[in-house]
Amino acid sequence: MKKISILGSTGSIGKQTLDVVRQHKDKFEVVAISANSSVDLLLEQIKEFKPKYVAVYNESSYIKLKSMIPSDINIEVLCGMEGLKTISSLPEIDVLLTAIVGMIGLVPTLEAIKAGKDIALANKETLVCAGDLVMSEAKKMGVSILPVDSEHSAIFQCLNGENNKEIEKIILTASGGPFRGKTKEELVNVTKNQALKHPNWSMGRKISIDSSTLMNKGLEVIEAKWLFGVEHDKIDVVVHPQSIIHSMVQFIDSSVIAQLGCPDMRLPIQYALSYPNRIECDFERLDLAKIATLTFENPDMDTFPCLKLAYETLKMGGTYSAVLNSANEILVSEFLEEKIGFYDIPKYIEKTLEAHTSIEKPTLEQILDIDKWAREYVSGLIK
Amino acid sequence: MKKISILGSTGSIGKQTLDVVRQHKDKFEVVAISANSSVDLLLEQIKEFKPKYVAVYNESSYIKLKSMIPSDINIEVLCGMEGLKTISSLPEIDVLLTAIVGMIGLVPTLEAIKAGKDIALANKETLVCAGDLVMSEAKKMGVSILPVDSEHSAIFQCLNGENNKEIEKIILTASGGPFRGKTKEELVNVTKNQALKHPNWSMGRKISIDSSTLMNKGLEVIEAKWLFGVEHDKIDVVVHPQSIIHSMVQFIDSSVIAQLGCPDMRLPIQYALSYPNRIECDFERLDLAKIATLTFENPDMDTFPCLKLAYETLKMGGTYSAVLNSANEILVSEFLEEKIGFYDIPKYIEKTLEAHTSIEKPTLEQILDIDKWAREYVSGLIK
Repeated sequence: MKKISILGSTGSIGKQTLDVVRQHKDKFEVVAISANSSVDLLLEQIKEFKPKYVAVYNESSYIKLKSMIPSDINIEVLCGMEGLKTISSLPEIDVLLTAIVGMIGLVPTLEAIKAGKDIALANKETLVCAGDLVMSEAKKMGVSILPVDSEHSAIFQCLNGENNKEIEKIILTASGGPFRGKTKEELVNVTKNQALKHPNWSMGRKISIDSSTLMNKGLEVIEAKWLFGVEHDKIDVVVHPQSIIHSMVQFIDSSVIAQLGCPDMRLPIQYALSYPNRIECDFERLDLAKIATLTFENPDMDTFPCLKLAYETLKMGGTYSAVLNSANEILVSEFLEEKIGFYDIPKYIEKTLEAHTSIEKPTLEQILDIDKWAREYVSGLIK
Repeated sequence: MKKISILGSTGSIGKQTLDVVRQHKDKFEVVAISANSSVDLLLEQIKEFKPKYVAVYNESSYIKLKSMIPSDINIEVLCGMEGLKTISSLPEIDVLLTAIVGMIGLVPTLEAIKAGKDIALANKETLVCAGDLVMSEAKKMGVSILPVDSEHSAIFQCLNGENNKEIEKIILTASGGPFRGKTKEELVNVTKNQALKHPNWSMGRKISIDSSTLMNKGLEVIEAKWLFGVEHDKIDVVVHPQSIIHSMVQFIDSSVIAQLGCPDMRLPIQYALSYPNRIECDFERLDLAKIATLTFENPDMDTFPCLKLAYETLKMGGTYSAVLNSANEILVSEFLEEKIGFYDIPKYIEKTLEAHTSIEKPTLEQILDIDKWAREYVSGLIK
């Protein structure tokens, strides 16, 4: 029985994680769940999965949930960042699944690593902003960072039994998002509703916008560098609209190993939880003869400058990727509120990067300071 | 330094094996080579690779080669099946690469296994005719059977670090051969020259004909059963004309791992020799954006009944697969001599299977007797 704590159980990945647990109650037990403010759904999840702990980040939501829990349910209700940290490092858990969106996932993840817990990582900002810190902490503590992203899970699976020193290139596939094939002119005035329509995956709002700008792929490139210890010039992106090949690894002997499947986030979630084993499940099986055609093209970095910016921050090193990510978080949220346009996202990220003084090997405090600075700086730009 | 003996060094796979050795003289040494009768090429290979032994199967060719070797070259020249057996089990070799075509590869391969040598196996008849015997001998002696076929090498690579008990299905890809998409009516009168034109791979004549009838894929299905210990109903074939995905494994959690690459037999040859390591090489790299499209379709077992017959022999078990293979060898050779038509191949195989009395768990002698019987029986049919 693997005991799990979930950061962000009411989001898209969180709900799908609980679906995996629901199908394998003999293998997984949910010890703790958490959310920002979705108390109604949290209560439902508490009733179904009977966790011992629940953490609510938002204080008024915490108070609300406390009042909603029936007196016959025995659960410890926690609040704020302290609550997230507590449920991330509980002595009784084996693995922390972090499906929280944004920089907020970083501190609890580091707490979990320090407590020796394996991390099932769906929060990409953790590695984008603090890859060096997180990976060296993980190495020191001997914990595994198990990717939940479909692309990184694919690469992780392709590397099973292989020697990482024999990697020649990592090839991340990208669906291309809802705007693949469009020109810059066509995209200048796109709305958030157009950007939210992802062709293959059902995802949250932030990641859907990131997918439309290809920033999502850029963040994945950065994450791949840290997860697999591979430099930026050894990470390629190929656009593959059908999202059947989830990513690939090319080795020094020219051989390419790929992981394929129907687009279903539950597979990488389940793999992260069941690793190193695979477990039976009823997910749809791939039928390539039925799909008939898979296509591939190079990404258009002129039309989608966010991807290019992500590569550039990797080349520059230091804390540039953290700044890219923090600025992007603010800008996506502004775009979702229709306060800025589609191309304002890369424009203001670039300006923020230009204004940044990078730090090599930053501490957690420095990373948090830089995050704060980037958010304030980019907010100032768009006022 | 890995020391290698090669059965069939003058054939297509043999020559490509020597090309791999040529590029990695620091890693591989050729101790022995052999051929049926191509003495001119053998002499060239002797001069370049300086093996300590050469075996010539055909006796008059053996005499001819002996007379051709300059007196300053120090090499032991051997003859016939005894010669093949000797070079397969030399104390100084680490691995036997068997690239001989047909049933003739079986006995020397068993000799090598008994002598504790790893086998790089390009001779598919070995497992098709004697899979049970060969695999149990290999298990007993603790030797590895390393597949050289591109498809089986792909599967072998996909299974790296995986648990064979978690295999749900093996998916062999097939180019579909030169007659993909044709109807039975269009194929009744095809000639050997049409059948010899394979779209993607440069191969020998026997395997090219087998590829045009899909018998090649049928033999690979049988081989896969023995190599990976998977039953016939867990082995699928999907037609993939571009030959980029070389085969796949689907696991119980629905995840599919595939191996891809440009069609180049040197990669699986090199992998079998370098396993468990991968080594750098200058083979062409895969560029999926350039290839742009991969397609997939179900195989047409009505138009290509040889594939169906191969599955049926696996279902029936015993020595039916051996009979299928022996009859096919004779029939392909008759087709190459333009003595029979394209559909006479499956027709006479079926008749031979019907006349066969199968043996469960046959000994080597029984397998050799059955081979002889099948050849005589099918020869009698077409007179």
